[in-house]
Order: sequence, then structure tokens, then C-alpha cells
Amino acid sequence: MNPSPITVSQSKAFVATFELPPTGSGPLDGLCFAVKDLIDIAGWKTACGNPAWRDTHPPAVAHAVCVEQLLQAGARCVGKTVSDEMAFSLLGQNHFYGTPLNPHAPDRVPGGSSSGSASAVACGLVDFALGTDTGGSVRVPAGNCGILGLRPSHGFISMAGVNPLAPSFDTVGIFAGNPDVLARVSNFLLSTELAVANEPETVYVVRDAFTLADEEIRHALMEPVRMLRERFGDRLRDISLSDIDGETTGENFETWRDTYCVLQWAEITSCLGAWIADAKPEFGPATAASFELTNRLDRGRIAGAVERRERYFRRLRSFFGPRDLLCMPTAPALPLRLGDPLPDRSAKTSGNTYYPRALSLTSVAGIGRLPQVSLPISPDGVPVGLSLLAAHGQDAFLLEVARILV
Amino acid sequence: MNPSPITVSQSKAFVATFELPPTGSGPLDGLCFAVKDLIDIAGWKTACGNPAWRDTHPPAVAHAVCVEQLLQAGARCVGKTVSDEMAFSLLGQNHFYGTPLNPHAPDRVPGGSSSGSASAVACGLVDFALGTDTGGSVRVPAGNCGILGLRPSHGFISMAGVNPLAPSFDTVGIFAGNPDVLARVSNFLLSTELAVANEPETVYVVRDAFTLADEEIRHALMEPVRMLRERFGDRLRDISLSDIDGETTGENFETWRDTYCVLQWAEITSCLGAWIADAKPEFGPATAASFELTNRLDRGRIAGAVERRERYFRRLRSFFGPRDLLCMPTAPALPLRLGDPLPDRSAKTSGNTYYPRALSLTSVAGIGRLPQVSLPISPDGVPVGLSLLAAHGQDAFLLEVARILV
Repeated sequence: MNPSPITVSQSKAFVATFELPPTGSGPLDGLCFAVKDLIDIAGWKTACGNPAWRDTHPPAVAHAVCVEQLLQAGARCVGKTVSDEMAFSLLGQNHFYGTPLNPHAPDRVPGGSSSGSASAVACGLVDFALGTDTGGSVRVPAGNCGILGLRPSHGFISMAGVNPLAPSFDTVGIFAGNPDVLARVSNFLLSTELAVANEPETVYVVRDAFTLADEEIRHALMEPVRMLRERFGDRLRDISLSDIDGETTGENFETWRDTYCVLQWAEITSCLGAWIADAKPEFGPATAASFELTNRLDRGRIAGAVERRERYFRRLRSFFGPRDLLCMPTAPALPLRLGDPLPDRSAKTSGNTYYPRALSLTSVAGIGRLPQVSLPISPDGVPVGLSLLAAHGQDAFLLEVARILV
Repeated sequence: MNPSPITVSQSKAFVATFELPPTGSGPLDGLCFAVKDLIDIAGWKTACGNPAWRDTHPPAVAHAVCVEQLLQAGARCVGKTVSDEMAFSLLGQNHFYGTPLNPHAPDRVPGGSSSGSASAVACGLVDFALGTDTGGSVRVPAGNCGILGLRPSHGFISMAGVNPLAPSFDTVGIFAGNPDVLARVSNFLLSTELAVANEPETVYVVRDAFTLADEEIRHALMEPVRMLRERFGDRLRDISLSDIDGETTGENFETWRDTYCVLQWAEITSCLGAWIADAKPEFGPATAASFELTNRLDRGRIAGAVERRERYFRRLRSFFGPRDLLCMPTAPALPLRLGDPLPDRSAKTSGNTYYPRALSLTSVAGIGRLPQVSLPISPDGVPVGLSLLAAHGQDAFLLEVARILV
């Protein structure tokens, strides 16, 4: 996959390397993996990308449940990878732990918050890696690094031993360079029934999701979407988000993003606010600004956001057949260039609107509890991700479709 | 509901009382509630029923997301209620915080771990109360105390600001004395579409669940089940668990219980093990014995248990129509008498087998991610619970059926 081998040290993807042998034998025999430093490895401190968290918490006494599953199935674990601070970023630049290498675009960020796991896979150092995805933290770095990334249906892969950020949206996700490996690992973790079908009934291309993206993303995805159309013919249909949510007024993606952000920020304060107030941890400047934003949330908005979340969830559920897919860009822009000014999380209309546009795209799977796979597209060298989403619980089918497309 | 009013102090249900006014107005106007001391109230320490936990954790900076929803809808919160230590018990006797009163059976335990919330409702001190239910901690005390209790479908009521025990099974549940109040509160928290239907298509009476219970439970439930048969006629059908899981060999309930316990114990170690190893907290003797049991789990059993859990989940999903119900006893025995020797969590065949039998019954909703409501039955004074379970997501329908039956 890589022209010249990249070393662990060159990748800057790991916070620690070690050798955890498999505890059993099974479908993952022979595969090696790494896990984001938000996921417990027995005997190690889980730092969550922040030295103050590491220093105020004891070491894990057990591997996370998902890690136990993988070891039991024959895989071996070779290290812990860099996470953005507290998993609260989509960029992949950690003030304390550095920026893992994006090997296919070395002058650009890998994307986050599962930056090290994406980098380790893209650099060819492991067969697969675990990350976490609350609002895009697997999907976005998979797209940036030119590999596959799955955010699974919410609620199926155990979160025990994985530090919570916003439990209503938190998932353990999987990166791989190869669709067969992604399917093997994901299907094992999910314990799903293997899908026999791999032909979608309808692929809905969400037009306003493409409109939301930069011209260079739309351009990069034009040919892949054309190939989908060639392959699936009439089964490919253009829709807009309003065809799903039934809202006739307003900016639909903006409403979905707002619903997601109110709940994510409310849950982040519930999960981390007491520790932050008590331990007064040092954060990098971008992380400090993000937490400041969550502190300013009007919690009186929570009840309305829950109502809207569940309404949209039901609309998606009735929209989706078990063999239908949505298609949209994974991210709205090419990965940020190293050294460029950071996008502002609160910028909505002026300045760098990366965050609100990215969260608009990622909020669909979050609100719908849907599985989403990001497929690598690299026509001009800088990786771009094309995403497919399936109905809740249809992960195995989604992964089968990914296998025939990649 | 109660012949003579019981005071807060007589109830021994509360760890703190206060007055949190509503922050909005809505469907819960005029109702007052209390929350289990596992659920955050801003400015208060969440003790989780253990003084060492309280002393090693900072106060909450925000109300849990579910509490914010209730205040916004017009309800007021009047206190925090006693929890069994770390929510890891079904009895309701806290070594440090005492045993809340079971007003309908004052010589018996209220059941746990949401003991104080059940007691506060049964004593008529609040209109409803929040608890948490991982393996029965709302259903069992509701049954013991002669009130209604809902364990909702997993994954719909936010767990943010609620201390995790075993995330794959953790839910926020609701107690009420009145089925209308239970439905109003639950439907609001879940933001479900209101059910118009309240006539089940089929009510499956799970015969081996009744066989598992003591003679006095079977006797107490005979008349209520006869009345269901009278009401629903041919729509009531006798089945056994093997009709659902398709397993032809072995003790089905024992296999379900074992699957549940392996995953619950594995997740408990992941959630609490590092703190226990580090802080070396003092536990009451029964709690210490329970945690000792989780430490002895062979974590090599996790992968197999996940596979079985998801297989049974899928079997339940294909078994259940959206208007079908399961019917079974809530608990296998009358509430323990105060002063009697405690049941042994590990007793399977000899001694007091309360725990394995109770967890066999509660594991069905846990594994199936199903909503379950416990209805109060009190023919001879000591309360007994009759449970109905519906398909995942069918909470509103289940609550409508409860309204016509109670």
C-alpha cells in the first residue's frame, strides 16, 4: 500500500507500543491491531490524549470489552495510538502528543479524534485499528487518510472500558486499509448475522450534502458517484435531506447539526464537566475553546433537542428499507494543511466553517443511530472520503456493499 | 394510596431533600419527583450509595440530561434517594445508608438497587421517581413495593450524568404509583410517538418463567393471568423460552442468565475496577462479595457471550411483532424479610437461589434491549410484580396496555 515502509517513529501515531498476544484463535487469526488511547489496555493508563487526565486517573485493570473480543478471535494488539484531547476534535493535532502522519498527504492533518489509529493503518503499520466515533472521529480521519472507516450502528459494540464523551452518540469504530479486513473485524465485534445480499435496493444521493462541501470535494467525488450511477442505474436516486425529515422550512442540515450539537455538548458537560471544574486540567488552546463552548450551552434547550432527535430518528427509520443506502461526502473539505489557522468550532457563516459543515454531515448517522462507512477516493493524491449509510443494524449489509465497491 | 401519611424521615428513602423548581412548563406540570443517588444533580456529590465514591469524586456541575428534560417539562425535583452500593444489588439494604421503607410490607426489603426511589413513590412522597435498571434495579423494587416500574428500551433515555455500571445494559427507569403518570413521564423522556393502539395482538405467557418462581409467587399471579386470559382470550398463548431462542438442549433461562452475567460482570470491572483497585473503598459485606465475584470472571468468556447475546437479541426481534407482549413474573420470590440471611449471588442449585433466578427473569429484557413494565399485584398484602415486555422501541404501546390493565 505504501511505496516505502514508514516506521512507527516516523508515523508519530503511537503513544506506546507493546505486544499483546491473542488469547484465542478464530476469524482474526494473524491480524495485528492498535487501539486509540481512549480504550483501556490492562496495566496502562488511558490518557484520553491529555496529560492531566492521565495523571488524575489510575491504570486500567482490564482490557476494554471490545479489545478482549479481538484478542479472543486471534488478533494481536501492538500499541496505543494518539487521540485528540478527550476525543473532542476532528483535526488530529494534539497540543501535547503531536500530529500523527497522514502518509498520503504529509503536509495535511490526519483528522481526528482517532488520529493515531487512522495514521497507523494508513502507514501500513497495523492491519486494522480501533477508534471511537461520537461526531465523526472515525469517519473523518478515515476520509483524510485514504483508508476505510466504519462508524457502527449505535449500541452494539460495547463501550465498557472506553472513556465516554457523549454516550447517546459514542461508538467504537474500526479502520482498515482493506474492505475484507474491515468486514471480518467489524462483523466479529458486532456479532451480526453475515449478510448474503450485497446489492442495494436504492442508493439515495443526498444532494444538499454535496452542495455543502467545497468545490474540490464535489469534483473529487464526481467520478465515483458517476460510477455508482453506472453500476446501479435507476436504483440511484437524488434526494435532499428534507425528503427524509419532512421539514419544509429552514436549513435542514443546520437544524440536524444544531440538534446534534446541543445534545453532544450537554452530554460532554455531564461526562467531563465535574472533572474539569475540580482538576482544572491544562488543555491545548483549541481544546480549551471547545470546552468553553460547551459551558456556554443553554441547558434549557436539551428537552427540545431530544424531541427533535427522536423525531428525525423515526423519520429515518421509516424512510430506510433494509437494503437502502444514503450517499454523501464524508467531510466538507480537504484535510487542513499543517500550519494553517485552525477552523473555529463556532463559525457558522463567516471564517472557516469547517466544523459546522462537517458536523452537519456526520450528524445524520449520529441522530439516526446508523452505520456509516467512509470509502477512500484519491483521484489527485489528497484523499477524500465518500460515505455510505445504511439502516440501523444493517452493518453487515453495508460492509458487503463496501467490499464490492472498493 | 396510603392509609396514613408517611413522612420523609419515616420512609428512609432520601439521602437529601431540596426543592428544584421546574425550568419550563409542559406535560409534567404539577408533578414532583426524586432521583436515585446515581443520577447527577448540579452542586451535589453523586455518592452512588457508597461513601468512598462520594469522597473521591467532585460534585456534579450540571443536572443529568434526563433531569434537565423533566424540569423543562414542568416537573419539580425534591430530593436524591438511597441507592444500593454502586447500583450492584437487587435487595435494597445499604450497609451505609440504611434500608428504605417498603410501606406495603414493612418487615421486608424494598428491593434494589433503586430502593429509595421505589420507596419514595410507594410511600406517596413523590408522584414519580427515576432509578436505574441494569439487571432489574427498577423492575424488582417496583414489584417488591407494589408500584409500577418501567425499564425502557435500551439506548433511548440519555445516560449522560448517570454513573455507568454496565453500559450495554444500563438504562434510566421510571417508578410511579399511577399508570397515567408513568406513561406521561416515560413518553416525554423517550420522546416516543404516542401509541394509539392498546390491544395486544398476542400475549405470550412464558411458562418456564413461572415454573422458576416460588409457589407463593405463582399463586399470587394465578388470578391476574386468569384475568388476562379472560380479557384477551385466544390471543393469550403459553410458550417457553426455547420457543424464542430455538435452543433445544439445556436450561434455557440458565443460559440467558449466564450470558447476561458474563457481560455484566465484565463491564462492571471495566467501569469500576480501576477505581476499586486504586481507592480501595470500604464496601458493605454483600457488596464486597459481589465485586469479588466479578473479579473472578474468566474474561476469555466475553467473546462467546457477546455472540450469544446478539443471537438471542435477533431471535427476540424476529419473534416479536410490534403489538406482541411477553408475560412473566417480575421476581422469583417474595421480598426478603428484614433480618433474614442474605441470598448468595453465586448460589445456583443449593441454598438461597434468589439471585440466579431473578437474573434469569430480568436477563430477557437485558439481552433483548426490550422495554419491560412491572405491574403491582397484591392479593394477600405482600406486593408481587407481574411483568409485561414489548418489542424494542414499543415503550409507548406497552405503557398504553399497562394503562388499561391497572
